[in-house]
Order: sequence, then structure tokens, then C-alpha cells
Amino acid sequence: MGLLLIIEGVFLFVSSLVAWGYGGHDFPALLLSAAISVGVGTFLWVSTKNAKKTIAKREGYIIVSLVWVIFSLFGALPFIFSGEISSYTDAFFETISGFTTTGASILNDIEALPKGLLFWRSLTQWLGGMGIIVLSLAILPIFGFGGMQLFVAEVPGPTPDKIHPRVKETAKRLWGIYVLFTLIETIMLKFGGMTWFDAINHSFATMATGGYSTKQASIAYYSSPYIQYTITFFMLLAGTNFALSYQALHLKFRSIFRNEELKYYLGFIFGFSALIAVVLFFQHNKEAELAFREAIFQVVSIITTTGFATADYLLWVPFLSFIIFSLMFFGGSAGSTGGGIKIVRVMLLMKNSLQELKRIIHPNAVIPVRMNNKSVAPQIITNILAFVVFYMLIIIIGSVVISSMGYDMETSVGATAATLGNIGPGIGAVGPSANYAHFPVFGKWFLSFLMLMGRLELFTVLVLFTPAIWKK
Amino acid sequence: MGLLLIIEGVFLFVSSLVAWGYGGHDFPALLLSAAISVGVGTFLWVSTKNAKKTIAKREGYIIVSLVWVIFSLFGALPFIFSGEISSYTDAFFETISGFTTTGASILNDIEALPKGLLFWRSLTQWLGGMGIIVLSLAILPIFGFGGMQLFVAEVPGPTPDKIHPRVKETAKRLWGIYVLFTLIETIMLKFGGMTWFDAINHSFATMATGGYSTKQASIAYYSSPYIQYTITFFMLLAGTNFALSYQALHLKFRSIFRNEELKYYLGFIFGFSALIAVVLFFQHNKEAELAFREAIFQVVSIITTTGFATADYLLWVPFLSFIIFSLMFFGGSAGSTGGGIKIVRVMLLMKNSLQELKRIIHPNAVIPVRMNNKSVAPQIITNILAFVVFYMLIIIIGSVVISSMGYDMETSVGATAATLGNIGPGIGAVGPSANYAHFPVFGKWFLSFLMLMGRLELFTVLVLFTPAIWKK
Repeated sequence: MGLLLIIEGVFLFVSSLVAWGYGGHDFPALLLSAAISVGVGTFLWVSTKNAKKTIAKREGYIIVSLVWVIFSLFGALPFIFSGEISSYTDAFFETISGFTTTGASILNDIEALPKGLLFWRSLTQWLGGMGIIVLSLAILPIFGFGGMQLFVAEVPGPTPDKIHPRVKETAKRLWGIYVLFTLIETIMLKFGGMTWFDAINHSFATMATGGYSTKQASIAYYSSPYIQYTITFFMLLAGTNFALSYQALHLKFRSIFRNEELKYYLGFIFGFSALIAVVLFFQHNKEAELAFREAIFQVVSIITTTGFATADYLLWVPFLSFIIFSLMFFGGSAGSTGGGIKIVRVMLLMKNSLQELKRIIHPNAVIPVRMNNKSVAPQIITNILAFVVFYMLIIIIGSVVISSMGYDMETSVGATAATLGNIGPGIGAVGPSANYAHFPVFGKWFLSFLMLMGRLELFTVLVLFTPAIWKK
Repeated sequence: MGLLLIIEGVFLFVSSLVAWGYGGHDFPALLLSAAISVGVGTFLWVSTKNAKKTIAKREGYIIVSLVWVIFSLFGALPFIFSGEISSYTDAFFETISGFTTTGASILNDIEALPKGLLFWRSLTQWLGGMGIIVLSLAILPIFGFGGMQLFVAEVPGPTPDKIHPRVKETAKRLWGIYVLFTLIETIMLKFGGMTWFDAINHSFATMATGGYSTKQASIAYYSSPYIQYTITFFMLLAGTNFALSYQALHLKFRSIFRNEELKYYLGFIFGFSALIAVVLFFQHNKEAELAFREAIFQVVSIITTTGFATADYLLWVPFLSFIIFSLMFFGGSAGSTGGGIKIVRVMLLMKNSLQELKRIIHPNAVIPVRMNNKSVAPQIITNILAFVVFYMLIIIIGSVVISSMGYDMETSVGATAATLGNIGPGIGAVGPSANYAHFPVFGKWFLSFLMLMGRLELFTVLVLFTPAIWKK
């Protein structure tokens, strides 16, 4: 944990250099925060130097949950020190929303923020995305957390019998791809007319499926179809399994064509985009290209849980806003930076339901659910069931909590679904043209907690509330 | 089917006698409808007299689904013949809403309806409730439909090896209880100041968890606490497993105290009632008794999927309306006349989710879900999963269809959830003070279809859409 804090300090220092370069007043605030992070980190590291080096599985859960919280506690400092955000609650909300790649903001005027802080804000998302890829593809498969590791195609590591070098090697490979994609997007956005600063920031937020923009109007600020399509493409990429991208870059296409989750993911995206485009064309009288562009941008943005916007879907006919709302319950692919329920779960749930109809007609036949030509173990189905029930239960309880603060039903469900799913914009008073500034203090901490739970696949956080994990 | 139509004709004839007794102009309409039903029924019966007498399982699905449709097609006739409802769509909607014990109405002035038709309207609910008890407790356990038969405590039949007499005997016993409860409620309501006519009609609607009232204001018309508590009690009774009532009447209390579904059912009801009562007391400044009465009445009415109202919950603070909306996803007990997802499913879903947390911490232990001190087979969990996924999928697709007619999100979700759950009143423009008259023709047929699907536990209708069932 100490080491990780030092790393955060280094990135805070990089942000302070950005602030210094632009001559912003946020330079000292970022530098001070960097010093505090490195200082506390070093203290923790040195003072625990002689502690045991192995991590038990139970400790793993606690560490993973704590990392996100501690990162946010320290990452919120520069907003406070610079005086740009006056309440610590707001600063924490903005930071954990970044690290969890949610993208829900409390800022009413994003462009007023100095460049160094804007950069740090985007960087929290990028680091959060990086963390979640490594967690889901390199660390979770080894620790066997939560069941998600069962679905993600593993990146082949060089030494399967030795855990430590394998995690390191896998992480390196995935980060390589992540950095590469970010770089390519930055160059492509710069080529489309963005400043280098905006291009980098938007690439950070895209690859992390985060959704923080440097513009108050989000991507609607850029009217260029080229920029909007570029971002759509990279959001789509960020929502796919990074292990598949790894294989694609090594020209191993067989496992990609076989991957059923990818088929469903693309099927949902193009199916819903086509439907929405048709309605936008006929009912809203938009011209064909614009209708298609707005439709696919919003669909990809919501399914991948990014949360960028080029249009306010709440101004569309109710039918379309409802579809967009429903998409909040899909989520990205397993092993991507996207949050939510995840396509693989939705897919297996649908398959199981269809198989059940066959089982009813042929009660004596054994009809398993199959994925990628292999039958799926019943324990996985039970695990998915538990996940979805918790997910829905949290949505219901969360909505009740939010509505008890005086919010209407749409806002309550919208804010809960958009934070638990790590999306950002929801429906009602948290739509794409609005933000989360109006929530009371308790509401912001509560929604922050939902972001954390959603990001860590529920179970990682939920097991901490069971007595069993605290027993010796 | 012919025989069942003759039976429907007999009940239409009874209604015509009521019309005749009150000297209403609906007498000829009801008599004519009775004649048509008996006529067509007799024709069908005689013309298929020499057909084979055994019913294959696949035919079973088709017959069960068809019975509800055909009953509604003929049951709608008196409304048309009398001129009281001018469109056949509306008449069909009102009738299938009765037979499925939904209670969603298209009538803007219920009190204007002549007595005979009001009686027939309540009778459709009572017959629908009777049908569903026999289906779920006597017929389904034998045919092995849909999985629900696994949860319902069977009424002990005298000859377990011979199917025909067993169904007959079980049905007789259950109907006995159903008639007995209806009778007691009628007398108790009469005693509370209702006319005999209103007492009988409300008892029909209560025991069927239907919710059709003879008053436009529903139960809010009766300010008497005695009447409201009486109806609350009988709604609660109608939402419990009738096999348990059978055992209670035979003084076999052991299986009742052991029944976990009953504990959850009562737990949900009293828990939510207490919560709502407290908020009504403090936030709406209602006096204690009224707060409690309104709370428990609405909670029982929604959980049991009856749909009677003594208060408009949409006028409560959003927090409370949201809770009421959430309750629409619970439903009555298995083997009751209540619809919805059913308590036993909700309970097993919750239990499975909690067990999953234990499974994560102890990945090598086998931790089954237990109910009534027995472990539940994984196939049952998979079946419930499939059911709930279909249920939610239908809610989403249904809401999209309704919103495409120009309705807002709340009304769309509300109407879909309230018809699929066989509740009646929903949220938005189909709240307890509103009705379903404003839907376009296609919307009414669509919602009628949802009522049918919900009533027959989804699978019974869904399997009809699989190719496998139509293959030889």
C-alpha cells in the first residue's frame, strides 16, 4: 500500500509539472499533494519493511478495496489545497469518481479549472482503468476472486508455475497495449484538430471508459464527425477484453472469432444503435449521418460505461431515453475497463433462460449452458445469479436511500444505476447535461460507496461485511 | 374446453339472474352471452366426443393458455351486448383483467355499470382465482409444468397413484376452503355496514387477489376502519398458500410453523408496513392508527397483487412511492391466488446470494441453498434464474413498447409491471386514482397479453413460442 501511494505521488508530481508548464496557480497544490503522498507512502513502506511478504486471500479483499479508497483520499488533496473545490466531500467524490472510472462530476464549470488539475482529474481515470485491467486479467485469475476470473481469456504468461513473475509479465503486456491505444487515440484526436492537452485528456478518459471531459459540454463541444467517430471507436475498444486485443496484436485471430462475448457485445451495440438511429431519423427529423452518429456514440458511451455525451438523450422521445436507461444494465466486456453487470453475465443469463424453455419441454434431458463451445459449470450460473440479485438489490436499496433525500423516482434510480454501473450521467436530475453537485453530503458519500462497489464487482466489497472474513 | 365454456355459460346465467333481480337493462345481454357460451361449448363438446381422452404434456400448455383467452373472448360479450362498453378491445381488456385477477380497469365510472355486469365483472376474478389455485396446487404438480410445482406444499390426495381422482379430490378440498373464506368475508363485510351486493363483490375480488371494486374510489369509499382491516386480513390470507390454509383448518400446524415462505411473506409485509407507517406518521403528519392502516393496506394490496386502494400512494413522498413500486416485484406466495414473481422465488434468490458470499470465502466447501430444512436442487435455482430474467426482460421490452406509444418512463414501467404482476394499479398515469382507458387499441391488447403471461408463470406461455413444442 505504501508503494502504491508513492506511485500515486509520482503521478501527482507529473500533474504538478503540467500545472507548472501552463503557469497555473494549482502548481503548489499539486506539488504539496505529491509530497504528502510520497511521504506517507514511504513511511508506510519503511515501517512495514520487515512484515511478512505473502498476502492471504482474505487480506487480498481488504487491500483491493482499500487501495481505491486511499488513492481517492489522497488524490482529493490538490482540489482542496488549490481552493478549486471547497468541500472535501466534493473533492473526494470527484476523485473516487475518477479512480473508479465512473465520471460523475460535481463541477459546474469544468473549463474554469486550471490545466494541472484537469490533467490530474483525467489521470485518475486513466490510472483507475489501468488498475482494473491488471486486477481483472492478471491478479484476480490467480487469487480466484469473485468468479469473474472464470470468464476472462487469460493473457499467456511465460512462467505459469511461478505466480509473481507471471503477474508482472502479464501486467506489463496489458499496460503496453493500454499505453499504445492511448497514444494512438491522442495522435488521432490531435490530427482531428484538438489541442495536444485536450487530446491527451480525452484519450485518458476514453481508454479508461471514464468519461471526464475537459469541456463542460463533453464531446458535444467538438462538432467534428471525425473526432466523434474516433472517440466512438476507442470507447468500443476500451469496452472489449484487453486480452483479446493482445491476441489481435499478435495476429492470433482464432480465439477472437470464437469469442462469444465479443459477438454479443457488438451485436447489442449495432442492434441498439440501428434502432435508435432509425427513430432519430424519422421522429426527430435528423439527417441520416447525424442520426447514426448520435445513436452509436450514445449507445457505445453507455454500454461501455464511459459516459461521454454528444447529445442529451433525455430530450429524445421517452421510448429512446428508456432504451438508453436499459443499456445502463449491460456494461462492458469482462477484462475491459468498462463497469456494470458485464456482457458475459447478460449473455449467460439470456442463454440460461432460453435453455430453461428447452428443459421444460424435455425434462429428462441434461441441457447445459454453453459458451465458446464449452459447457458452463452450474456454479458459475449460480454465481452470476447472486451477482445480479445483489446488483438489483443495491439499485433498489440505493434508490430508496436517494429518494429519502427528496429526489424523484427517475433521479433516484438514475443516480444509483449510473454510479453503481460506473457510467456517470444517468437519468432525471443527473442526466448528461446535469451533474451531481446538488446532492447533500451524505448522498455524495453514499454514491461514492456505490461507485466503489460497482468497480470491484460487488463481491470484493460485500464479503467485507460478512462475519466469516473477520474470523481467524 | 367445450365443457369449460358450458361452465362459463352457467356463471353468465347466474349473473343474468342478478341483473334480472335488480331489474337492470343488462339482463338480456347477460342471458344472450350465457346462451352463446353454452351453445358453442356444447357444440365443441359433442363434436369432439369421440376424440382421445388423454392429454399430452405439450397439449397441456396450449390448453391452459387457451382457456384464459377463450374465457375472456366469451366473457367480454355481455359488456358489448349491453352497450355499456362500446369497443370490443376494451371489453376484452376488462374481462381478461378479471380472469387473470389483475384488476386493471378501463372504466371511468364504475358505479354507472348495472348490477348484473358489476357482478359478472367480480365473478370473472373469483373464477380466475379458483382456476389458478387448482392449476398451481392440483394440476401443475402432476404435469410438472414450469417448476412452480416444486415449491408448493401439496394437499394430500387420497389416491396418489391414480391421477384423475386425485386432481378432482384436491380441487374439491381447495375450492371448499376458497368458498368458505369468501363466505366468511362476505358476512364480515355485511356486518361492517356494506350491502350484501357490495360485500359479495368485494369478497370475490379479495379472495382472488383481483382488486375490482364496485366503487370508483375503491376501498377508500369505505371510511370504516373495520371494513379496511377486514379486507386487509383476507387479502393477506388470499396471498398465502391455500394448501397451508387447508392444513391449518385440519389443525396441522407443524408444517405451517416450518414454512419459510410464510415467514418471509409476513416478514416483508410487517417490515415494509412499519417503515411506511413511520414515515406517514412523521412526514405526512397522519395520526398513528390511520398511518398504520393506510400503510398495511397498501403494502398487503400490492404484495398480494390485489390492487385495492384506500390511499393514493403516488401522493406520498417519492421515497414511499418508490418502495410501493419495488413491492410490485414481490408477489404472493406459491399456491395462492396472488401473481407476480412470488415470495418463494425472491426468498431463494436472496438466500442464494448470501450463500455465494460464503462460497467465495470458502471456495472448496459445498454450500447449498436450504429451504424448510432441505437443500434446494441446483436445477431449481437455475429455473428461478431463468424465470426472473424473463420477467425482467419482459418488463424492459414491455416498457419500451408502451413508451413507443408516447408514454413517459414511469407510466411505461408502471403499466408493464402492474399488468405482468397481475396487480392492477401501477405508477405514473396508471396510478391507483387512474385507469387504463387512455391506452391505444394495440396497447390494450399488448397489456392483456402481459396479464396472461404473468398469470401463467411466464413459461406456460413462453414455451408456445419455441419451435420444439410444435415438433412431432
